[in-house]
Amino acid sequence: MAVVGYGHSRFGVRSDVNMAELAWEAIKEALETSGLEPKDIEHVVVANAGGWSSEPLPAVVVAEYAGLTGKPLHRVEAACASGSAAVASAYEAVASGMADIAIAVGIEKMNESPTPTVVEFIGRAGNYFWEFENFGLTFPGYYALYATAYMARYGATEEDLCQVAVKNHYYASMNPKAQFQRKIDLETCMKSRYIAWPVKLYDSSPITDGAAAVVLASEEVAKKLTDSPVWIHSIGAASGTANLSKRDDYSGLKAAQLAALAAYKRAGLEPENTARYFDAAEVHDCFTIAEVMAYEDLGFVRRGEGYKLVREGQTYKGGLIPVNLSGGLKAKGHPIGATGVSMIAELTKQLLHKVEPGRQADIRKGLVIAHNVGGTGHYAYVTILGLEKPKAR
Amino acid sequence: MAVVGYGHSRFGVRSDVNMAELAWEAIKEALETSGLEPKDIEHVVVANAGGWSSEPLPAVVVAEYAGLTGKPLHRVEAACASGSAAVASAYEAVASGMADIAIAVGIEKMNESPTPTVVEFIGRAGNYFWEFENFGLTFPGYYALYATAYMARYGATEEDLCQVAVKNHYYASMNPKAQFQRKIDLETCMKSRYIAWPVKLYDSSPITDGAAAVVLASEEVAKKLTDSPVWIHSIGAASGTANLSKRDDYSGLKAAQLAALAAYKRAGLEPENTARYFDAAEVHDCFTIAEVMAYEDLGFVRRGEGYKLVREGQTYKGGLIPVNLSGGLKAKGHPIGATGVSMIAELTKQLLHKVEPGRQADIRKGLVIAHNVGGTGHYAYVTILGLEKPKAR
Repeated sequence: MAVVGYGHSRFGVRSDVNMAELAWEAIKEALETSGLEPKDIEHVVVANAGGWSSEPLPAVVVAEYAGLTGKPLHRVEAACASGSAAVASAYEAVASGMADIAIAVGIEKMNESPTPTVVEFIGRAGNYFWEFENFGLTFPGYYALYATAYMARYGATEEDLCQVAVKNHYYASMNPKAQFQRKIDLETCMKSRYIAWPVKLYDSSPITDGAAAVVLASEEVAKKLTDSPVWIHSIGAASGTANLSKRDDYSGLKAAQLAALAAYKRAGLEPENTARYFDAAEVHDCFTIAEVMAYEDLGFVRRGEGYKLVREGQTYKGGLIPVNLSGGLKAKGHPIGATGVSMIAELTKQLLHKVEPGRQADIRKGLVIAHNVGGTGHYAYVTILGLEKPKAR
Repeated sequence: MAVVGYGHSRFGVRSDVNMAELAWEAIKEALETSGLEPKDIEHVVVANAGGWSSEPLPAVVVAEYAGLTGKPLHRVEAACASGSAAVASAYEAVASGMADIAIAVGIEKMNESPTPTVVEFIGRAGNYFWEFENFGLTFPGYYALYATAYMARYGATEEDLCQVAVKNHYYASMNPKAQFQRKIDLETCMKSRYIAWPVKLYDSSPITDGAAAVVLASEEVAKKLTDSPVWIHSIGAASGTANLSKRDDYSGLKAAQLAALAAYKRAGLEPENTARYFDAAEVHDCFTIAEVMAYEDLGFVRRGEGYKLVREGQTYKGGLIPVNLSGGLKAKGHPIGATGVSMIAELTKQLLHKVEPGRQADIRKGLVIAHNVGGTGHYAYVTILGLEKPKAR
């Protein structure tokens, strides 16, 4: 199965459009790049975490505005991995023979609610009853637990984490769709205020409105539609405990590790030392510590070595493996339902040499990888895309 | 692909359990009837419309409590058809080869919120901005529009609609899992207060807490697990406009008609005069008018003839086609995310002669059909199950 079209709205504070209009920006581009019209789409999946919008059926409103009414349609939610769940759901619809052409749309309009409401709502993710209600934990607090555990065990510093932000802002500065289009220096991050020690303002992804869409097609149809399909080599998915108190380890995310193992197995790749396989990666840097854990959970390097990649600049272009050349959640922005779809759209464009020159990866191996986490490791998806059709196994 | 296990909680006001405990009632029975343990399940889909719960990630909480942590997991929403969307999603996961054994869980705990809040939230379904905000329409109001259009065009009466309620309460009185376990007479319904003319209290489904679960398995695995698999012959899905103002017709639901056509085509059945194919049907009677429209949208009879089935008692046992022998949404109850899964669990039991004697259908043809609508025709799913394995086409 192949990605045959990709679309992406500008991310940011998008009070200039309503939810349906914002989704249409991405859907329109996905249709154009695939050479299709709405009538050609046979199956629609919409990712939206919701909760801040007064519209309880976002999928139907988005589908109607885009001219997709009548098609099989449903909404998926897997917290901040909702977008990847939509891509997986569209993949399964096509792979199961229910459709030949499916579109996965991710949309979130978070700035409709006041920021404290959004922060509270996100904070409830996990186990509301035990963790939010009793401890008052919000998301920066959750990831601060991971950061302190990681720093204590492996010796990473706040500077290491801030260097992730510096890198991702650098690449976002070249991405016209990114929420933050300016570079920052280490000092700016280090001097930014603490949200939950050691997590600072500049370690944190913003509250974002945005949409992304990808069109998937069966092999037979993809070959008719395009000379340059991007093939889905594998999708791995897994979940984690609701309660953080039931996790075994706080320096990595078990769900992401399981999802990576599943994706590597299906793609026929060894799960160790995996940076060698890929030209680029998009990983879930909702906080800078999350990007460091992603390096390890994906097996790019061994456990406890992730921050050394940052120190050595190995995740810039030209390094061991370029990560988040889009700017990542940190600087491109993180419209929850759109993020996972955005990763697939971005990596498709990377493989096809369609991104801005300064942030275009060297495509030599022809494989790329996406890593999308929901909640604090409650959900995880790992998706591998390639220029060559995967070998049948 | 086959249904190899089915579970169903008691429906009603379930303040005796929390959300995870309620879901577990259904999951436990589904595991027991399939002879499986949580570790055997490879893929989990949870249907939950949410909005009335303080738990924003219901799927992870449900999965953790049921011992399903680690598996691929996501939540689906298709309004009141969310349960069918979960079954379809689990079906696609298995049919695509992503899993051999998947569980679809539907769960809703609506009584956590005060009734006016629930009614307002449901009322927002459709197009919130245009219809709820401006006209103050709630769900009884929406279905009252359909009822008046249908009655005006075809000559159906309020008595006809109330007869649907009488039938469904009759069967619910024999269903120990139903919310309402007492019969009503026509007078009780006719004298009940108007909610939105001509829809009366007894024309309306209640606010319900409940859960249901089904386990699906690939053909190969199903044959190992059980001597009596129930085969999924087809699933058809479709969507409708967000705005009711953009609908062409108000005496039927276009989405349900499209979903039925798709299901019949995949199952190799002619779409007319379809009552002849089935031993029983479960249809979406959120209001009594909805059951009458379902008869026609499913092609049991021609347009405008549905209420005559009611007058003639043709949808009782022994009639042309018995409908809602479970009690339906009207009397069994309608816990939104659970309803579609409940239909599949119920019909599986009907085919296997596992329901209470008074409401057990005569199984002669070996085929049954489920019809599940989301919103006011925003989503629709039609699912056909059978005792014989479907012929390859």
